[in-house]
Amino acid sequence: MNAIYSRRSIRKYKSTPVEETQIKQVIRAASYAPSAGNERPWHFIVIQNRETLNAFPTFHPFTQMLKEAPVAIVTCADTSAVKYDGMFWIQDMSAAIQNLMLEAENIGLGTCWCGLYPNADFVSRVKEMLSLPEHVIPTAVVALGYPDETREVPERFIEERVHFEKW
Amino acid sequence: MNAIYSRRSIRKYKSTPVEETQIKQVIRAASYAPSAGNERPWHFIVIQNRETLNAFPTFHPFTQMLKEAPVAIVTCADTSAVKYDGMFWIQDMSAAIQNLMLEAENIGLGTCWCGLYPNADFVSRVKEMLSLPEHVIPTAVVALGYPDETREVPERFIEERVHFEKW
Repeated sequence: MNAIYSRRSIRKYKSTPVEETQIKQVIRAASYAPSAGNERPWHFIVIQNRETLNAFPTFHPFTQMLKEAPVAIVTCADTSAVKYDGMFWIQDMSAAIQNLMLEAENIGLGTCWCGLYPNADFVSRVKEMLSLPEHVIPTAVVALGYPDETREVPERFIEERVHFEKW
Repeated sequence: MNAIYSRRSIRKYKSTPVEETQIKQVIRAASYAPSAGNERPWHFIVIQNRETLNAFPTFHPFTQMLKEAPVAIVTCADTSAVKYDGMFWIQDMSAAIQNLMLEAENIGLGTCWCGLYPNADFVSRVKEMLSLPEHVIPTAVVALGYPDETREVPERFIEERVHFEKW
């Protein structure tokens, strides 16, 4: 389980292509996330077209790395599949993204999770760009590719964040 | 990375106690999740008191397993630490929970993620029960303990959920 502790957001990528089998492998990992009522609302749009990749940073300032990354995966929630009211589906999507990123780390690929939802402007632009149906919400765009940077991982555990029985 | 593919929600637990070092190990794993702007809003309330564990199913129908599980971890978001408007913090919390559950699986412990937020009734009852400050929101209660059931993991990958370039 070193991937949990070695993963960092990667913002510099090599141009080396990523195999389709690897792309499907990380999406398969995402698909093993738990979800409320086992609703599994996720869809994945794989983007490798250079023009589409370059379009993201024109409206989303935190996606500059997509100018270099060979792949982006847009994670989408089909809200027509949702069984429970409220925001459980966005939690399901996030667990799936974490699985995707850990599996990528495990096979030597870097990722960067760039949030879309709930930013209304990001969501509507991506919906239009990718021809998403009305009931499908893009939650994030995740950069994927071979890292062209090495990042140290600082100790993340903070003892004071652990409470026993009460706050 | 077998934990991604072997993990299932566990609803039957042995009474065997869980060591404090193991509890801290899974919380440490949670702490390595990414977060929007690196805000890391998480706190963790570790519950081992039998009366407190038994109190959850009196108001939350999906937490029956806490009558048996020796430990529950309530994941909380300190909204005063949040840098971005909106729902990015609930996504951060969910990635942290997924890490926690994978690390538990990795060390032979079972988990079950029971959602609290955004159910207003669950949130207010847990806030009161655990004396949480106003700005701290409990997002989930995660059962933790040695599994007393074995669950097969079906294939989760659905080829039709993968789209290329557009929907």
